[in-house]
Amino acid sequence: MRLSRFHLRTTKETPADAEIVSHQLMLRAGMVRKLASGLYTWSPLGLRVLRKVEAVVREEMNRAGAIELLMPTIQPRELWEETGRWQKFGPQLLKIRDRKEAEFCYSPTAEEAITDFARQELASYKQLPVNFYQIQTKFRDEIRPRFGVMRAREFLMKDAYSFHLGDEGLVAEYNNMHAAYTRIFTRLGLDFRAVLADSGAIGGDASQEFHVLADSGEDAIAFSTGSDYAANLETAQAALPAARIAASEAMRKVDTPTQKTCEEVAALLGIELARTAKSIAVMTGAGFVLALVRGDHTVNEIKLGKVEGLADYRMATEAEILEHLGSEPGFLGPINAKKTIRVVADREVAALADFVVGANEAGFHIAGVNWGRDLPEPETVADLRNVVAGDRAQDGGELRIVRGIEVGHVFQLGRKYAEAMGATVLDENGKATVLSMGCYGIGVSRIVAAAIEQNHDAAGIIWPEPMAPWTVAICTINPKGDAAVNEAAQQLFDTLQAAGIDAVLDDRGLRPGQMFADIELIGIPHRVVISERGLAAGTFEYRARRASEAENLGREELLAKLIR
Amino acid sequence: MRLSRFHLRTTKETPADAEIVSHQLMLRAGMVRKLASGLYTWSPLGLRVLRKVEAVVREEMNRAGAIELLMPTIQPRELWEETGRWQKFGPQLLKIRDRKEAEFCYSPTAEEAITDFARQELASYKQLPVNFYQIQTKFRDEIRPRFGVMRAREFLMKDAYSFHLGDEGLVAEYNNMHAAYTRIFTRLGLDFRAVLADSGAIGGDASQEFHVLADSGEDAIAFSTGSDYAANLETAQAALPAARIAASEAMRKVDTPTQKTCEEVAALLGIELARTAKSIAVMTGAGFVLALVRGDHTVNEIKLGKVEGLADYRMATEAEILEHLGSEPGFLGPINAKKTIRVVADREVAALADFVVGANEAGFHIAGVNWGRDLPEPETVADLRNVVAGDRAQDGGELRIVRGIEVGHVFQLGRKYAEAMGATVLDENGKATVLSMGCYGIGVSRIVAAAIEQNHDAAGIIWPEPMAPWTVAICTINPKGDAAVNEAAQQLFDTLQAAGIDAVLDDRGLRPGQMFADIELIGIPHRVVISERGLAAGTFEYRARRASEAENLGREELLAKLIR
Repeated sequence: MRLSRFHLRTTKETPADAEIVSHQLMLRAGMVRKLASGLYTWSPLGLRVLRKVEAVVREEMNRAGAIELLMPTIQPRELWEETGRWQKFGPQLLKIRDRKEAEFCYSPTAEEAITDFARQELASYKQLPVNFYQIQTKFRDEIRPRFGVMRAREFLMKDAYSFHLGDEGLVAEYNNMHAAYTRIFTRLGLDFRAVLADSGAIGGDASQEFHVLADSGEDAIAFSTGSDYAANLETAQAALPAARIAASEAMRKVDTPTQKTCEEVAALLGIELARTAKSIAVMTGAGFVLALVRGDHTVNEIKLGKVEGLADYRMATEAEILEHLGSEPGFLGPINAKKTIRVVADREVAALADFVVGANEAGFHIAGVNWGRDLPEPETVADLRNVVAGDRAQDGGELRIVRGIEVGHVFQLGRKYAEAMGATVLDENGKATVLSMGCYGIGVSRIVAAAIEQNHDAAGIIWPEPMAPWTVAICTINPKGDAAVNEAAQQLFDTLQAAGIDAVLDDRGLRPGQMFADIELIGIPHRVVISERGLAAGTFEYRARRASEAENLGREELLAKLIR
Repeated sequence: MRLSRFHLRTTKETPADAEIVSHQLMLRAGMVRKLASGLYTWSPLGLRVLRKVEAVVREEMNRAGAIELLMPTIQPRELWEETGRWQKFGPQLLKIRDRKEAEFCYSPTAEEAITDFARQELASYKQLPVNFYQIQTKFRDEIRPRFGVMRAREFLMKDAYSFHLGDEGLVAEYNNMHAAYTRIFTRLGLDFRAVLADSGAIGGDASQEFHVLADSGEDAIAFSTGSDYAANLETAQAALPAARIAASEAMRKVDTPTQKTCEEVAALLGIELARTAKSIAVMTGAGFVLALVRGDHTVNEIKLGKVEGLADYRMATEAEILEHLGSEPGFLGPINAKKTIRVVADREVAALADFVVGANEAGFHIAGVNWGRDLPEPETVADLRNVVAGDRAQDGGELRIVRGIEVGHVFQLGRKYAEAMGATVLDENGKATVLSMGCYGIGVSRIVAAAIEQNHDAAGIIWPEPMAPWTVAICTINPKGDAAVNEAAQQLFDTLQAAGIDAVLDDRGLRPGQMFADIELIGIPHRVVISERGLAAGTFEYRARRASEAENLGREELLAKLIR
């Protein structure tokens, strides 16, 4: 490709309305242009990157044995009613009426459409297992579309759906897809983690997210230094605490006139924050519950909700707290409650000895508290807290916390959709059996933005080679229009093309500074400059995008760098 | 590809609701499945064909220098208001409200979106000419979706838009696209014609349609045996008629008591139908007009509307006819009108001598009529008629009429959209100049159906090779599970793959009859059968899809047929 015959339009100014670096750089490089809120045109430059990502996803899905098809973007309400998602999906579902007032939606995902296809196409267990996928435009009517293509309304997604006779096949395909996703993100040159995600009612490892790691990521991810364990902060677990040590202090009431937080109390008493316990008062259908986590920890609301009897919990009101504990917030604790209450302790709190809690009396806490002696052992002990960096992991390693951008999700759906839609096949015994189902998504357009969040510098984007619009940029400096310079450039281009290297020849005739700034901004991994001076010396000026300096290389040395 | 790992589901029954053969065969081959009215899922088999068409279109567009980008399917009302098309497009435009009640449409075409892109991206004449294209899903809310993907609501279209400083560049790019389209349809192996289309206000050759020829086509196309002239029936012109011969008969009133049509009058008088003239009475803003075409011809309403002063014409009512001609319909003519009327004659009528017209008196016609002698020469002589098969063409050849399916359209739009949307660039003198624009569409999904309409037989589809889901099917007959048969099949598959031939190995273990019926139905161009008996004889059974018989070939002969 000659750049003079392409359409490239870069800008130096950082657009005012772009909040994150990938959005800023995609606009500056001219990869996308906004058509309306959450709707972007992919320019020729941007589309080259999008297609490269798409091609890797397609190749690896095919290699994994999945079969590509293509479903309509517009889908009838009737199908979505069969699963109840016409209502449940909420306002992200873009609803449409056609000229005959029939109702449709713009597919945000396609479980219903594929299950409809499956119930027409699959009749026998002999056709299983099968995994259908598509790479198709999706629409989610985000209330606040932002961050460019990172959270656009219209986006490109790869969605796959597998069908099985039973859970064994589902688990095998889930693992197959996990391996395919690992190959995809590895091939794309991204630093990523597969993390356990909260999978709602299904439980187990039935759901994992793939995150591209980047400081600007929206999600916090805990991972262990001891294994490849990684999980969303929602579900990450630390190792069990060490066994409780024996009591050594007497219980005593202490004056804490204005000290309402654990931090203030610990400072006043001169003890470690980790020896205090924080009381969280909640109400459930079955009554008042006091949950305890250590003063240096935060409660994890999803974990709390998974404790038996707490699925419907909400924070207690001040009146409810007064009624059950007899105190105002800031001095709450499990001792001297006004009524009989249920105490649910985090595992770390249950392991404490000689600890501090509120006295249920304004201005006072109780120190030297010990379970079994000063109050009954907690009714329920569970993991209630968010892990923190430095926690011991279950595998013996240390937990670290990084930030990530979710770009993929694998999920064991089980029979939910097939059951609702009556998708069955005949099993070995000729009996109609509801299909078991998995779904596997990749945000193709989001990967482009995530890659930039992970790979950029002050000069612009730094593409991993497999995603770069071109792998090599050949820049000519030729103010006198020397034919030898143009010939050398063309010759190098032809050599690279013959070797299957996707090169671009910058023959726009710009001044070197302007040309180099463009090539850096759009993130081309390798830059070669061809000039009269270089040709006279028999060298090419070569610079890798991440290198601080250019180097002058002979032809053979240069080709060795570029063709691998 | 091994067919056992693919998803193929064929049926023998012709679906009751499929009216045309391509729809029937696509359903029977399992290429598409209906999701809702005018909405189809492309199965894995169907998608293979669609992608092959798409790839040829993309390659030739790139070769022609067009640059691919991707616009959103959902587009804001504001843009469509700028050109007035929010209203003018009519009910085919699928209108949508998002969660904030903002209005959008699903793009049926993208002149507005690309012109918006162009006005942001193009600033200088130095960036011109440029041709942007996309291959993107479109939606048109057809009132009666039918014929499967031939007239679906959601479909895949390649749409290209070129921008120029002046008309010269536009014409050059129009010709470039015309050549690219010719290459595309030639490469796809289709019998097609580029035909002149009515281009409305722009005139000239500013619009051509590309039609795949098929007896079931919706459009009639006239072409000449003397050159590559071809045109829609709307615009096709025959050669000028021969000069008028001298009068030889006297004018006379003839009794035609019940003969109201030219056919009846000619039969009664025993003359050729071509010697009668049919009178068509129309009203315009400027008054009553009588248009004349020969009795054996039909009037072309589009041509009639292009006659000066007739742009606004409508058929005259019986009262208006009585008022101006003094007669009831069936006996109308240009002689003895009650009022002064304007006569507009088709060129063929103007060339007549001794012809017959109505007498403007119930029950009578006038024979032996001659221009200049019995009535004044016609005020206007123009081409008013539809051509018929056998007409002399302007190039001296003969006109023939065939039927076609429109699959492409090239159009010189001029400044219409750019003017409305204020898309300008600075010209050589630094003056803001409105862009000139062309647009070029190809119905990618429709090509698939059109190819089947043109290429099928009683057994099923006959794909042109470049569109076939696979070029070669290798069928194994191996009831005893002989390893040598499987090995020979795999070896042939590997040989073909190494030669870049897209082969499929039918290892499903079906009975031969069932297997061959599938392979014929889905239209694979070349079939090779490998059996124990064949291997023993050292031969492969080969059959081309269009051949009536199979032949036994040695390995070298076989490869010579398959690898070219």
